[in-house]
Amino acid sequence: MSNNGAVSGYIDANLDRFREELFEFLRIPSVSARSEHNDDTREAAEWLMQKMKHAGLETTLHETAGHPILVGEWRGAGSDAPTVLIYGHYDVQPPEPLDLWTSPAFEPEIRDGRIYARGSVDDKGQLYLHVKAIEAHLKANGRLPVNVVMLAEGEEEVGSENLMPFVEKHVDLLKTDAVVISDSTMFAPGMPSIGVSLRGLAYFEIRVRGAKSDLHSGSYGGAVANPATALARIIASFHDDDGHILIDGFYDDVVAAPEFVEQIRTLPFDEQEYIAEVGAPALVGEKGYTTYERLWIRPTCEVNGLLSGYTEEGAKTVLPAYAMAKVSCRRVPDQDPKKIEKLFQKHVEKVAPSGVTVEVLVLHGGKPWRARLEGSLYEAGARALRHAFGRDVIYAGEGGSIPIVSEFERVLGAPALLMGFGLPGENAHAPDEWMSVENFEKGTHASARLLEELGS
Amino acid sequence: MSNNGAVSGYIDANLDRFREELFEFLRIPSVSARSEHNDDTREAAEWLMQKMKHAGLETTLHETAGHPILVGEWRGAGSDAPTVLIYGHYDVQPPEPLDLWTSPAFEPEIRDGRIYARGSVDDKGQLYLHVKAIEAHLKANGRLPVNVVMLAEGEEEVGSENLMPFVEKHVDLLKTDAVVISDSTMFAPGMPSIGVSLRGLAYFEIRVRGAKSDLHSGSYGGAVANPATALARIIASFHDDDGHILIDGFYDDVVAAPEFVEQIRTLPFDEQEYIAEVGAPALVGEKGYTTYERLWIRPTCEVNGLLSGYTEEGAKTVLPAYAMAKVSCRRVPDQDPKKIEKLFQKHVEKVAPSGVTVEVLVLHGGKPWRARLEGSLYEAGARALRHAFGRDVIYAGEGGSIPIVSEFERVLGAPALLMGFGLPGENAHAPDEWMSVENFEKGTHASARLLEELGS
Repeated sequence: MSNNGAVSGYIDANLDRFREELFEFLRIPSVSARSEHNDDTREAAEWLMQKMKHAGLETTLHETAGHPILVGEWRGAGSDAPTVLIYGHYDVQPPEPLDLWTSPAFEPEIRDGRIYARGSVDDKGQLYLHVKAIEAHLKANGRLPVNVVMLAEGEEEVGSENLMPFVEKHVDLLKTDAVVISDSTMFAPGMPSIGVSLRGLAYFEIRVRGAKSDLHSGSYGGAVANPATALARIIASFHDDDGHILIDGFYDDVVAAPEFVEQIRTLPFDEQEYIAEVGAPALVGEKGYTTYERLWIRPTCEVNGLLSGYTEEGAKTVLPAYAMAKVSCRRVPDQDPKKIEKLFQKHVEKVAPSGVTVEVLVLHGGKPWRARLEGSLYEAGARALRHAFGRDVIYAGEGGSIPIVSEFERVLGAPALLMGFGLPGENAHAPDEWMSVENFEKGTHASARLLEELGS
Repeated sequence: MSNNGAVSGYIDANLDRFREELFEFLRIPSVSARSEHNDDTREAAEWLMQKMKHAGLETTLHETAGHPILVGEWRGAGSDAPTVLIYGHYDVQPPEPLDLWTSPAFEPEIRDGRIYARGSVDDKGQLYLHVKAIEAHLKANGRLPVNVVMLAEGEEEVGSENLMPFVEKHVDLLKTDAVVISDSTMFAPGMPSIGVSLRGLAYFEIRVRGAKSDLHSGSYGGAVANPATALARIIASFHDDDGHILIDGFYDDVVAAPEFVEQIRTLPFDEQEYIAEVGAPALVGEKGYTTYERLWIRPTCEVNGLLSGYTEEGAKTVLPAYAMAKVSCRRVPDQDPKKIEKLFQKHVEKVAPSGVTVEVLVLHGGKPWRARLEGSLYEAGARALRHAFGRDVIYAGEGGSIPIVSEFERVLGAPALLMGFGLPGENAHAPDEWMSVENFEKGTHASARLLEELGS
């Protein structure tokens, strides 16, 4: 058994440097969705490769049809020791709207114990703390307690299209006993959590076309269909007044484990605090469910974007030729991705008003996931988090999606441990994204301890 | 009586130059809605002033809180002769979306007998032909058959806020026996028309706010209201499935003269041709009304623009903090502007979903108008148009608004003659706006003849 005290000591002695390195990582605008950032996205991969090498991993950058996949390996624990695969992503969400950031998105800044930057918590900070935990073991003890494979992709924010084909092609390289992912939030500050469910995603773009070009709304209004109005009527058809989704068959396969529902209802929830966090006038959602149920075990149908006609300063009396909405459904177990896509498309076709043509594009999707909680991986995770944070873990759901979790389990046949270090209100995917400095540090300790626990 | 043959001859001999001058006018991007074009808008006013001077008018540029108002006068017909006020506007709509223009918006080009440019028909071409008609009289005969006041403003596309205060302040300067306006379309090519009704306008911006910033649609979706969805539900509440507007009291004061309705139903209408012109899959509108009724005598409620969340390439899983719609109602006689504004705001408040805050801004508005058809002005207009186009005029409605028509009648106490030279499909307010070369030329003749008719 390795000397864990030395590992802890190494981490504590190097925390300032770790944070400075993370700042370097955050300065690279690796926005995978934007082709003009392709060079930056590659730069982030190469930067991370150098850091993995420095930590003591053997690294390979694998080209894909999109952004490269980075693999780091350390196999010195021997074939009898378990192997752990740690997954994360080096790409980030687009930073827009830029004017809503307090400090620039790609110039990390600490305020009130938080690292503000695009990608700080999603997922560069959470990925990089594992690199530092590995470095601590290898520098302090010359070895890791387990074999480790790190897998970092650059397309998580655009649907991870090239990841699973890569994993399927490299099953031998990636063979593992456990998959560890830190790309989610803890239940609350100081309350370490293990994620036990994820919602899946089905992301659509609805395109509505009317006349061949924009028309004068006075000269033509009333006689020619308005695509923006048509789109609004389509969107309004998704829910009833109680927030239930009206897409036929949408809830057919929604299954929630009764014991999990029971546990959710015991969790502390301060509605006023949550309202203050999100800054909305009130909480609303599907009638008959609590907030955590709405977030963790109920599917959604949300508009992510709307665009039509004239949207700038002043008044333009235009009858738009075109209207577009981005709409995504969060799916829960056991909703099937393909089935939901079909039901959604069928619904839009059914409600589409006449006088316009409507097209539904499937942009990307991901399966929902539910943890198999039994087994040594979850026990090791719980002990590692208790060690780092000084209190028992909470088993929490997660409203977001990490589409590849269930795919990893399927292809690699190993259970996944979701050990997130984000926090509520972290603004992932929004301006002023942040990660807690304390969680970055305690997360590094937790990761180091997890490797210890899995190796013992 | 002046020599009308000489006037006609002068026009025919100078048509090429008139067109080239119009091109100069069209090259000035006088987009009144955009502050970055303020200098261009002024340049258009000054350019027009020079041309009026050259025609023989005495000109004055009056400063306002917005864009300047240009007045040109010729009073040589004497105090016994009638005075005619010709109104037009030198500002234009924003040209966006630029990529849908076949040739650039501010680089006029003739294709198939049409002058393509932003402002060609709305309203620079229709305004400028009157300047040229005046020039023809003054150069050919040294005098005009009537006293003339030309009034050109630069804020018609943004609500004419400063025009009526100016008119009210200068009632003596602008005292007239008739107001002539060319800012509308003919019923069809070769079919000269006099406009007998205009719809009024009430332009709103609806702003819906939810959380204080954009949120991750996975982490928060389902528990926090979505402003884009809320906005869609508000918009969907404006109409029933038959296209009737559901705003309480909206139709209360809608009055259409039975004889006009009767005449509308006798007008030729080719549905397939109209569908081809607008390029929509089908014509839709309020059930129980024909297309011309929907356009001329029925009010509307149209979305002019929509914006929320992420609208660029790819998928961003954002729960927007904000959603905006521009919505305008076309009003018909005798709907009262203030009343409609209040009913609209009340309706939006009533249907606004919980969990969001909703604000309704009134951007601008204009009264509907109905012509008083009896009298010498209409007879003179009909004769002038018959002279220029060789056939009898059609009395047509107009779906659009010229908000100041009823205001002119109220303040100046003189009837207005709507003598438009646009054509269906002219793309006013849309990419590829055009004006027929033939109508520019025949319109110049018609204007010259109208002055003659009014003076005889």
